[in-house]
Amino acid sequence: MTEQKARDVLLAKNILQQRFGDKLLTGESVREQHGHTTTYIPNQPPDAVVFAQSAEDVKWVVEVCAEHRCPVIAFGAGSSLEGQLNAPEGGICIDLSALNQIISVDEDDLTVTVQPGVTRVALNEHLRDTGLFFPIDPGADASIGGMASTRASGTNAVRYGTMKDNVLSLKAVMADGREITTASRARKTSAGYDLTRLMVGAEGTLGVITELTLKLHGLPESIVGGVCNFPDINSVCRATIQTIQYGLPIARIEMLDAVQVSACNAYSKLNLAEKPTMFVEFHGTEASTKEQSETFAEIIQEFGGSDFQWTANNEERSKLWQARHDAYWASKALRPGTDAIVTDACVPISRLADCVEETVADIKRHNLLAPIVGHVGDGNFHTAVIVDMDSPEDIETAKKFAERLSQRAIEMGGTCTGEHGIGQGKKSYLRQELGDAVDFMQMIKQSLDPQNIMNPEKIF
Amino acid sequence: MTEQKARDVLLAKNILQQRFGDKLLTGESVREQHGHTTTYIPNQPPDAVVFAQSAEDVKWVVEVCAEHRCPVIAFGAGSSLEGQLNAPEGGICIDLSALNQIISVDEDDLTVTVQPGVTRVALNEHLRDTGLFFPIDPGADASIGGMASTRASGTNAVRYGTMKDNVLSLKAVMADGREITTASRARKTSAGYDLTRLMVGAEGTLGVITELTLKLHGLPESIVGGVCNFPDINSVCRATIQTIQYGLPIARIEMLDAVQVSACNAYSKLNLAEKPTMFVEFHGTEASTKEQSETFAEIIQEFGGSDFQWTANNEERSKLWQARHDAYWASKALRPGTDAIVTDACVPISRLADCVEETVADIKRHNLLAPIVGHVGDGNFHTAVIVDMDSPEDIETAKKFAERLSQRAIEMGGTCTGEHGIGQGKKSYLRQELGDAVDFMQMIKQSLDPQNIMNPEKIF
Repeated sequence: MTEQKARDVLLAKNILQQRFGDKLLTGESVREQHGHTTTYIPNQPPDAVVFAQSAEDVKWVVEVCAEHRCPVIAFGAGSSLEGQLNAPEGGICIDLSALNQIISVDEDDLTVTVQPGVTRVALNEHLRDTGLFFPIDPGADASIGGMASTRASGTNAVRYGTMKDNVLSLKAVMADGREITTASRARKTSAGYDLTRLMVGAEGTLGVITELTLKLHGLPESIVGGVCNFPDINSVCRATIQTIQYGLPIARIEMLDAVQVSACNAYSKLNLAEKPTMFVEFHGTEASTKEQSETFAEIIQEFGGSDFQWTANNEERSKLWQARHDAYWASKALRPGTDAIVTDACVPISRLADCVEETVADIKRHNLLAPIVGHVGDGNFHTAVIVDMDSPEDIETAKKFAERLSQRAIEMGGTCTGEHGIGQGKKSYLRQELGDAVDFMQMIKQSLDPQNIMNPEKIF
Repeated sequence: MTEQKARDVLLAKNILQQRFGDKLLTGESVREQHGHTTTYIPNQPPDAVVFAQSAEDVKWVVEVCAEHRCPVIAFGAGSSLEGQLNAPEGGICIDLSALNQIISVDEDDLTVTVQPGVTRVALNEHLRDTGLFFPIDPGADASIGGMASTRASGTNAVRYGTMKDNVLSLKAVMADGREITTASRARKTSAGYDLTRLMVGAEGTLGVITELTLKLHGLPESIVGGVCNFPDINSVCRATIQTIQYGLPIARIEMLDAVQVSACNAYSKLNLAEKPTMFVEFHGTEASTKEQSETFAEIIQEFGGSDFQWTANNEERSKLWQARHDAYWASKALRPGTDAIVTDACVPISRLADCVEETVADIKRHNLLAPIVGHVGDGNFHTAVIVDMDSPEDIETAKKFAERLSQRAIEMGGTCTGEHGIGQGKKSYLRQELGDAVDFMQMIKQSLDPQNIMNPEKIF
């Protein structure tokens, strides 16, 4: 940080301190916690954390920061994975967790309007009695604002889409302090540029999201969950392609490799065969989930799928999916005291088998411990490389592996990130993936945030 | 047009003429046909039409036009409704209809890559033997590039989404002549700003689309079509809400008011009761479409729906949907020698009954002939005001009606356009609908097209 920058930031901080009093904290631990990211990327704490209580507070912070060219970093639940929350140039972190009001549930419209600090679990708890639910489920209990900002998805995306598909409209405080509404509440629109989709996935680099209207979905009358295993990874991938191509409206189709299954067995007390495994879920009427399960059972036979067990029992089903969501913790528990560096690649589904197989070979070749899980219906998968965070060598090896994986995905017509975002961690791959298109992204950034105060040094 | 502008355009035209020879036309009729729009908006022809044969040609035209600050208007099939193709500042129209190659069908990925001049009918004919289809169906046989540019949808959007949801990636020649690729071919991505969604709906104001990769869907094993009628419009709307809320995965749910039904009876030789009517369609397995039809039959009873007939017979079903797609022509045929001015509004579905009822009252109050059809599952509906195009009074009355309808939709939390776009016709409502957000759209326009050569005077 230059001296001028440091003076600017200090000035902004002092002005904000006068307004926010004890809602502005500067202690080391709170600042570090707000720069914290679940990655190998070193912590770069902001200079102060403002605990916003309203959109008005957000506006105020951005206005002061704009006047003094001070960086602004929005913070939801702190569960991003690619360094999205770090403050490499210092600045003010706006903690939005107190903006956790569910403003309105509009059952006739199948929409809900929320503040950005609402988490996905809190939202679905609130919706419990309405017969509606919000399907996007990244592993962590992320905030809705953060999920929108990283264009998050999760296990349900194969049926319900990602945040891109489920944010109808949003409000955001832009870099000049003005709050805009990106779209009406109509379910579709052709009115001007799609600012909603521009803000979704912008990782806080264009503005701070202060309100979101989301699409909801009817809770299915019947949910059937199942598990089965396969002789090898290639068979899992081919069975997935066949299922999707058949047009089966599958709600979840997840792959776990043998290493991940053994980790889940140990951590979540399951008794699964330690082979490449698929977790699936079907949503519909009772007749239709039964029909889907039967069709699926036929499809997987062709690919050597076996031991297919399915159940409509909620408790058994939940245990399975809790284990899937705990895969990250299960991986870490494989070697106590270690940590996991998580990667995220997504390829056209026709290349999924190739990409996963080459990745498995890479893992073996470099003697890594790196369980694989995948939202295979979307061609998206993760590896969690187990590392000793005190070992620079371990971290370097994991970084090199992640780099090779990103390049492999890009070469196969895919992307270096299906759902975690670019943040700081994947900046170097973005141009490799999209070439000159990145110039046009940067022109947009430059035009909407000419002082580069909104979450600087991210994405680009 | 200023004299300077006229000189710029002339210069660009002369340079292009040297390269394109007889692929550049300047005759009055071809120019008028390319400015032609199916609206009341007066024709503003371009100075010349270049019939591009390749993306390279497009790049060449844009480069020359950029050098000479000459407007560039992309033309697909000429079926847009809000003056998107007019050339108010003159300039070069690029006719993309010869860019009609289907580059690749990737069955495993459920995607197809096409040139922008491919039409939706040609695409689905090409796909016929694959078991896949592309669902977006505006009434006209529009080009895929044009459909992307106006963020088109149609009758299937309630189940399959709009162009926003079905374009995976695209190539575009931007205002500086560079061709970019907006995204990888992976089914989801969090890599940087969503340039795909920015170009979809930009109406050619940011660049010329030269290639698109689209999502395809499996042709359902069973398709069941049905028709039923209701005592009044309100009941149609309430039955729609109930159907959607129930979670019935309905593929099409269309409303026709009594006037439209009588127009369709006459034009398409049907024998429907001349009452508010619903056309529906269910996609799935045989068991599931049967179950859906039965559930639907139960739902509509509550709202006085009667005479529900459904059929899996393709011929009968196609006749019905052909009539729906011909609604525009049927409306015009109500009074031979007249024309129809079509409006397009979309509201949150909870307000649909109110909006349609107030619109019906408005039609009565002003003694208009204006049949109503609606993609009611999305809250989207159209009226076709029948006018004598030689009567300025008729046109003025229709314009005032369209204005009131747009305002009504906006006041109800909706949009002045669900699928036709802003073009020239709805510029004045955009700011009313989205306020300061329009400033940020204009900043983007200014940064990506600083000379304002890409389809100028549209949207803003």
